[in-house]
Formats: sequence, structure tokens, C-alpha cells
Amino acid sequence: MGAALALGERSRGRTTPNPNVGCVIVHDGRVVGRGWTQPGGRPHAEAMALAAAGGAARGATAYTTLEPCAHVSARGPACSDLLIAAGVARVVVALGDPDPRTDRFGLARLRDAGIAVSHGVRADDAARGMAGFLTRQRLARPAVTLKLATSLDGCIALADGTSRWITGAQARAHAHLERSRHDAILVGRATWDVDAPTLDVRLPGLEDRAPMRVILSARPSAAAPPDEEARPPIRITGPEQIAALPADHVLIEGGAAAAAAFLRADLVDRLLLYRAPILIGGGNPAIRDIGLDDLGTAHGRWRLHDARQLGTDRVEVYERSPCSPA
Amino acid sequence: MGAALALGERSRGRTTPNPNVGCVIVHDGRVVGRGWTQPGGRPHAEAMALAAAGGAARGATAYTTLEPCAHVSARGPACSDLLIAAGVARVVVALGDPDPRTDRFGLARLRDAGIAVSHGVRADDAARGMAGFLTRQRLARPAVTLKLATSLDGCIALADGTSRWITGAQARAHAHLERSRHDAILVGRATWDVDAPTLDVRLPGLEDRAPMRVILSARPSAAAPPDEEARPPIRITGPEQIAALPADHVLIEGGAAAAAAFLRADLVDRLLLYRAPILIGGGNPAIRDIGLDDLGTAHGRWRLHDARQLGTDRVEVYERSPCSPA
Ligand SMILES: NC(=O)c1ccc[n+]([C@@H]2O[C@H](COP(=O)([O-])OP(=O)(O)OC[C@H]3O[C@@H](n4cnc5c(N)ncnc54)[C@H](OP(=O)(O)O)[C@@H]3O)[C@@H](O)[C@H]2O)c1
Ligand SMILES: NC(=O)c1ccc[n+]([C@@H]2O[C@H](COP(=O)([O-])OP(=O)(O)OC[C@H]3O[C@@H](n4cnc5c(N)ncnc54)[C@H](OP(=O)(O)O)[C@@H]3O)[C@@H](O)[C@H]2O)c1
Repeated sequence: MGAALALGERSRGRTTPNPNVGCVIVHDGRVVGRGWTQPGGRPHAEAMALAAAGGAARGATAYTTLEPCAHVSARGPACSDLLIAAGVARVVVALGDPDPRTDRFGLARLRDAGIAVSHGVRADDAARGMAGFLTRQRLARPAVTLKLATSLDGCIALADGTSRWITGAQARAHAHLERSRHDAILVGRATWDVDAPTLDVRLPGLEDRAPMRVILSARPSAAAPPDEEARPPIRITGPEQIAALPADHVLIEGGAAAAAAFLRADLVDRLLLYRAPILIGGGNPAIRDIGLDDLGTAHGRWRLHDARQLGTDRVEVYERSPCSPA
Repeated sequence: MGAALALGERSRGRTTPNPNVGCVIVHDGRVVGRGWTQPGGRPHAEAMALAAAGGAARGATAYTTLEPCAHVSARGPACSDLLIAAGVARVVVALGDPDPRTDRFGLARLRDAGIAVSHGVRADDAARGMAGFLTRQRLARPAVTLKLATSLDGCIALADGTSRWITGAQARAHAHLERSRHDAILVGRATWDVDAPTLDVRLPGLEDRAPMRVILSARPSAAAPPDEEARPPIRITGPEQIAALPADHVLIEGGAAAAAAFLRADLVDRLLLYRAPILIGGGNPAIRDIGLDDLGTAHGRWRLHDARQLGTDRVEVYERSPCSPA
């Protein structure tokens, strides 16, 4: 299942509106097929893994990060039917599919065909990997990550706006990898105007992953992109409008006003914090007013999920605490 | 030596102008004596350990965190003479004593008496433990720790000044333990006026450790303490004046202006950062302007020495980098 989860990561941020599933088929202890949802959402992971396995799928075990779909679509057959037809003996599933066309039907169809089904294996990790799809199903909006790169004293820039560079090369490469895992990157209008950010993925082999660019601006005419631009940005006039974007994983990269707007609307699911071992003092703060008037209510909302050292910098990932549901 | 270092910690912040030394005497694999510099600076650690060991010191090994003193004083004999008289066979020393009356003479006197001497064992840890004494010897000022307790976005309070509580009970207990390791605690005049901080040690068994209180204020008449006050605060009118305090370990507890004043004067040796997993947004920043106008010069000054989780909070200790000497 660990391998299947890793495969699912390959197309994270590129399968909207479909989930980014991973699938591994194992026969007699040997991997005979691997698959992951292809960019755009089709073929599905199971279909790809079965195609790779061919006849070796008969009697094999399929590990898949999401319940195989039960609905035939114009774009392809149902994966549960494909698994049955291929003669797999056992299917191990991480997470049930909340899509009402599949929810429980996928597993039931496999069981009815005499296939041994296990369910719930590494479900938490699968939920993290497919956070965008699941958030869209549950809340009708994308999963939102807020990225901040700060000094030890929480500044994102000097008072004059200089922010190159606070973090080092390793942290910046990590941030570019995170970009590649999102459909869309959003910045506030001021950051757009000042930094003219390309918001692309500058990592060898991932240059084609440039996500859609989104600007938050209440002003109707601001930041109108020139027609000839290769990746014209999309403008939204309020944080709630991220729901309308054709993107299930959105990364917010600042500035402080945009960050505050999304926090205030309680639309942030994950914090991605890069912190450099420097003091700035009197610099620009990371987040403007979010309407907090009682320290007590600030507690218990964020839970540390992961942390690691990147050179002299540190990255921390916080998730919305289960006690603080969206 | 680990045990000797731990003993030296017992009187850290209470031995000025003497170093807080620890000493363990071991005979045939058994600890026969333990000592640490007593509050006020006398008796010395070696004298105390030898007194505990009595006749068992003959042929024993003495582990001591600092080179035994070579100078007789009105307040007691030289420790190197005491070790020789007690007949110890071997002395293991962490750090040489920079005091010109002892520097190298202590070790030489032991060797001349036929005692086996090892030197340099865990010298870095000993230097940390006796940072105050060493900084006073080297720079004629105390070792200075700046403490900050912040949210993830680097705020020390809401915009209205509320800062109770950002960190949890475990972090606050840790901060009180740190207080007990300092001779003096300093705050800016505004923090003094607003919070009227007692700056004492509220930990069971350590209530008597209340350090000297110091206020930074340029105004001559401000914060004059009432005569009847049990621990009248000392006022200094500029950061450089900490050199005049009868204290070798000084802890700065804010606010943002006082922190900036000491950083700007390059008088901070150690950062003690408590960080709670909350976002404040638009709150009071931890540090005011420190005169930084080039991000490049901010890098390389601080090196992470220690970090640990305290409940949901995290404490990090940064030290002045060796590449950035005072
Ligand atoms: N170090 C870093 O990681 C980092 C990252 C990003 C940015 N920065 C720096 O941050 C600075 C800019 O930050 P900033 O806080 O001033 O501005 P910003 O967040 O980039 O943009 C502010 C603008 O966003 C729009 N906006 C904000 N809230 C909104 C809402 N609720 N609804 C609709 N639109 C909304 C408004 O645009 P309109 O005025 O058009 O309505 C507002 O003027 C730049 O200097 C940049 O370099 C640093
Ligand atoms: N969460 C926390 O960890 C924490 C900790 C401490 C404080 N706080 C909060 O921080 C706020 C106060 O901070 P603040 O930044 O406004 O003030 P502050 O640093 O506490 O005090 C400022 C005062 O310090 C004196 N001062 C500063 N620099 C000086 C210099 N170079 N030479 C001589 N005197 C100097 C001046 O006093 P004069 O005006 O008398 O000359 C100045 O007005 C309070 O709301 C407090 O609750 C929070």
C-alpha cells in the first residue's frame, strides 16, 4: 500500500475532478502491475495497473488507495468490473470512495464476485494524498494549503518588501515540489503587482507542471493579463470563490493580506511553513488581521503533521485539527 | 564528566562573579564525592567534593568542569593544592580557566605534583554551562539570552496586548526553569508598566530562586520602585549597561523594543524561542526594527543548538554562530 500511495502522489494536482489514485498488483510476491490516475483524470489507476499486469493479474492481489469505481462512464469502464474480469483474487483498499455512484457499491461488487476484500489499510495517508478530491466531495471546494516562508520572528520580508532570500536553496526546491502537487497557485493582487511571480515549477523534469495561476483582487479591472500571455491568470474577487476554480488542490503563496483573507474565511486546511534561522526585526508580518479577539479560540485548531530540516531551514506542516472541522 | 556538568548546572545563575563548576570524585568505579560551586561563589566545587570524599579521595579520579584554581584567596585555599593534599591520582578537566591567575597554572601545578591530568573532555558543554563566567572574562559583560514566546506567525501578543496565554503549561514551566538559571531578568519599561511582572520562579522547590529584576528605560525617573519593595528592580538606561550588573547570566523577556535594543547592539548570545501552534494574524511582532537593511547579512548569525517538543509547543535554542563572533 505504501507503493500505491507513492504512485498516487505522481499525479496529485493534475487529475481534477478525479481523485489521484495509486494501484499496485502483486502476484506470488512479485509486482506485476503499477498504475496511477493519469493527468486529466483518465485512465484510472486500476485500469493502468491491470493493463501492465496482463494475464499475471489472474489470482493476484491488487492494492489500491481508493475504492474501485462502480460506475461505467463514457470515458471508460468501471474499475471494479475490470478487476473482476481480470480474475484478481484479492483487493486491498485504503479508503472508501465518497462519490455516491461508488460509495460501498465498488467493494460490494467485488465481494459479490467472490474476491476477498480488505478495507481501511493506511486510510489516513490515503486521505492526505487525495485531500483535494475528498474536500471537494465533502465541502464542495478545493483543499487549501497556505505557504509561508518566514524568519524566526515571523517576518516574510524586510520593511521595504525585500524577501529574496529568506530561506535557502533546499527549502525553495521543496516549495517548488509542493507547487507541482497543486492544480492552482494563488497570490494577492499586491504580490502579483510587486513580484510579478511566474509561479512555475523550477525543478529538473517537472518544468511542465506549471499550475494554473490565480489572483485574489476585489478590483474588477486590476491585473488584467495581456492577451498573449501563455498562462493567463484567473482572477477571483473573494476567498469563497476558490470553490469555482477547476482545481482540487490550491496553494496560497501570500501576501499577508491574501493569507489573512483565507484564514478569516476559515478556508485553510493545511499550513506549509518554511522557517529560516534569521531574525529580521520590524519586518513585514506573515499574516494581517484575521479577526482574532480571544487567544483561547486560537488554540487547538492546528496539529503538527510533519517537520523536517532542509539545510539550516526547517519546514513544518500543520493540518486542521480534527477538533476544528471545516 | 556528564555528572559533573549536571552538578555545575545546580548553581548556574547564583555564583557570580565565580564560575558555576561541578566536580565528581570516583574511586574504584564508585562515586565518593560530589560538589558544585555554592551560591555566592564559595566553597568551590572541588573543595566540596573533597570534603565529601574524605580519605576515599586518596588514589581517586576527580572530574571537574573547569581547571582547578591555582590562586589562594582570603575566602579559601586553591583547589589545585587541595587536590594534591588529598592524594588524588588523576584529574580530568573539561575546560581551561581563562582567569589569568589560574590559566594553565592550575593544570601545571597538578602535573608537577605527579597527578595524571586529562584536559578538554566535553569542553563545549562546559563552555555552555559556564557561559556567563566565560563571557565576562572574554567580553567584560554577562552572557545574554533573549526569550520570545510566539505564535507560528511570530506574534507575542494580540494587537490589544493580550499575551496570556500563547504557550501552554509545559512551556511556561520550562521558561521558569530557565529563569532559575539566570542571575537577572530584564524587561523593557513598557512591559514593566503594563504587565507588572513578578519575574520570579514559580516552580516547586525553586521559589527562592527569584533573580534580580532589571528594567531598560532611558527615562531617569520612570519605574522608580517603592521603597518597601522586597526585590527592588535595577534600572539601566541603555543595553550596554548590562555590563555593570552584578550578574553573569542575564535573561531578556521582552518586549519587542527591548529585544530590538539588545539585538541592535549585538549583545544577544542565545535565543530561547517558545512557539505555540496557533496563528494570531495582525498581532504584536516579537522584535521591533533592528536596523537590518540587507537580508544577506541576517544569515549565518544563529545556529540551532537544541530543540524539543513541550506538549503542543516547541522550544528551540539558538546560539551565536562561531562565524559571527561578538
Ligand atoms: N516572503 C514571502 O514568502 C512572501 C510571499 C508573498 C508575498 N510577499 C510580499 O508581501 C507583499 C504583498 O503582501 P500584501 O499583504 O501587501 O498584499 P497581498 O496579500 O499580496 O495582496 C493584497 C491584495 O489582495 C486582494 N485581497 C486581499 N483580501 C481580499 C479579499 N478578502 N477579497 C478580495 N481581494 C482581496 C486585494 O486586492 P485589490 O486591492 O486588487 O482588491 C488586496 O489589495 C509583497 O511585498 C510581497 O513581496 C512575501
Ligand atoms: N508574549 C510575550 O512573550 C511578551 C513578553 C514581553 C512583553 N510582551 C508585551 O509587549 C508589550 C510591550 O513591548 P514594547 O515593545 O511596547 O515595550 P518594551 O520593550 O517592553 O519597553 C519599551 C521601553 O523600553 C525602553 N527602551 C527600549 N529601548 C531602549 C534603549 N535602547 N535604551 C533605553 N531604553 C530603551 C524605553 O523605555 P522608556 O520609554 O522608559 O525610555 C521604551 O519605551 C506589552 O504589551 C507586553 O505585554 C509580550
